Amino acid sequence: MTPGFNDEKNGAGESCNNVLVHNPNLDAMKEDILYHFHLGTATHDLPAMFGDVKFVCVGGSPWRMKAFIEYIGRELGLADPKTDYPNICAGTDRYAMYKVGPVLSVSHGMGIPSIAIMLHELIKLLYHARCTDVTVVRIGTSGGIGLKPGTVVITKQSVDACFQPRFEQVILGKPVVRSTELDSDLAEELLQCSKNLEDMETVVANTMCTMDFYEGQARLDGAFCSYTEEDKQKYLKEAYAAGVRNIEMESSVFAAMCKLSHIKAAVVCVTLLDRQKGDQLTSSQDVLNDYQQRPQLLVGNFIKRRINAMNRGFSSSSHGVDKAKTS
Amino acid sequence: MTPGFNDEKNGAGESCNNVLVHNPNLDAMKEDILYHFHLGTATHDLPAMFGDVKFVCVGGSPWRMKAFIEYIGRELGLADPKTDYPNICAGTDRYAMYKVGPVLSVSHGMGIPSIAIMLHELIKLLYHARCTDVTVVRIGTSGGIGLKPGTVVITKQSVDACFQPRFEQVILGKPVVRSTELDSDLAEELLQCSKNLEDMETVVANTMCTMDFYEGQARLDGAFCSYTEEDKQKYLKEAYAAGVRNIEMESSVFAAMCKLSHIKAAVVCVTLLDRQKGDQLTSSQDVLNDYQQRPQLLVGNFIKRRINAMNRGFSSSSHGVDKAKTS
Repeated sequence: MTPGFNDEKNGAGESCNNVLVHNPNLDAMKEDILYHFHLGTATHDLPAMFGDVKFVCVGGSPWRMKAFIEYIGRELGLADPKTDYPNICAGTDRYAMYKVGPVLSVSHGMGIPSIAIMLHELIKLLYHARCTDVTVVRIGTSGGIGLKPGTVVITKQSVDACFQPRFEQVILGKPVVRSTELDSDLAEELLQCSKNLEDMETVVANTMCTMDFYEGQARLDGAFCSYTEEDKQKYLKEAYAAGVRNIEMESSVFAAMCKLSHIKAAVVCVTLLDRQKGDQLTSSQDVLNDYQQRPQLLVGNFIKRRINAMNRGFSSSSHGVDKAKTS
Repeated sequence: MTPGFNDEKNGAGESCNNVLVHNPNLDAMKEDILYHFHLGTATHDLPAMFGDVKFVCVGGSPWRMKAFIEYIGRELGLADPKTDYPNICAGTDRYAMYKVGPVLSVSHGMGIPSIAIMLHELIKLLYHARCTDVTVVRIGTSGGIGLKPGTVVITKQSVDACFQPRFEQVILGKPVVRSTELDSDLAEELLQCSKNLEDMETVVANTMCTMDFYEGQARLDGAFCSYTEEDKQKYLKEAYAAGVRNIEMESSVFAAMCKLSHIKAAVVCVTLLDRQKGDQLTSSQDVLNDYQQRPQLLVGNFIKRRINAMNRGFSSSSHGVDKAKTS
């Protein structure tokens, strides 16, 4: 085990840039098996494997997360065109994980429980690896409200199905509510990056996080539907009035868990359709593929600028984009 | 689209053995895209592809669901040892699907939202394919309470984190509660099948379905833990007193959605550890692999006996196992 990184124990306080766990039991464990990654502290040298990680990108689809690492490897000039990126979690089919330089790319499946399992183990991995100054970005797909399909939404606040910025979970049979606040400076920095890119219509807005794709998002095309088109439109209108511009299924627990760990986090999702105009994804595969690449391009631009700024000796946390622009 | 199978419209009533959807919109749609399967009514002949399906097995892991179809293919004498089973959902990485004869095997990822998306599209697929007399079984892994690791639990009732047999979901921002009742005759039939198999310690008991693997299941080894070992043991003891013998993350919505569709359903999960004795999965990979095969062997035995009984002219729905035993 890696001693000395449990913030509460060290009294390192808020100024510490380490990834925090809030679990007094961890340091006393002889071994920590990160079961769903097929990694562990006794079987893997996590500081050697992951100690240099500064950026973690997470997304639902393993294929997309592999495509992202290939893209960012090329962008950062770290890629050997002949080398395939090995899946670090090849011993399991639960999640896929790829790494190039300081960038880690991890899939999380669909829905809050699936991403929560991954985040528990990712946070412990970053903690055991003694990572510092880590930024985590979720790149995903979503349904839009009142936006042209293909628009990218950087999440301002993640809200629940009642439009409240909160994530409720049950611990020992009792409800516990956690804040879903995200880093507003990071959201602004990402928005600035979008302005450097062509065809990257981008907004900062609220994102609704639901537990279900069909009835939970007022779709009319699920196996069950007990409401009318009118009811659906009324609900989407209320969401719009609450500042919601897109709907997905992971952002609330993502925001809550990153906040608890003092990790700067952002959610960048493309909208695949306008839910006020339909429910089914009828666009061609080529169009959908083009849309899905947009969060990757935007976050790739952000990482490249941050790394360029760091290489020029600027502080990554406060000056990244602006300094890079003027250089 | 496939007209005429929407029960409410036809007035076919409860006696109908078709898979039911409860959505008046479906029959009016020109096309139904099952997006997360990469299948659709306009692009695929669903009755030709799936019309003969009588058994659907679902489980979290795509690898396990492929292993299951290979196993059941051999057991039913339908396998060509030289042929690899193609993934019917090869156009997407969200779910994997395999078929041999009347058996369909589908992965569902981890957690309620992930299995719910799959079930919406599976129920629509079975409806469009005009399937009748379908039995669906979830084969999975779980944490046990007071059971020897490797014990198989057939779910009597799926209960929530407060030990109530209910599934609550939010529709149009309002909570809706659904019953998680499973088919008790099917559970009894599966229990009888377990008696034909060696080393298949099996119980019928309640299963707790949670939204989280770590804090939601009172584990002490997550990234966050705000309670003590004593609190954990107290919670597990309360669960045990409520008849709970295992904990997993999908059974409640699985039971609720199958019940709404009039599909006979069962949940068969092996316990990988006794949660009263620990949280981490420390058993060797070989032991864990052996445990994970047990639900497959049990459900394989059940399907084989049902099919043998059907081939001998008995009704599958009422006489399957008992008649097969006496023949």
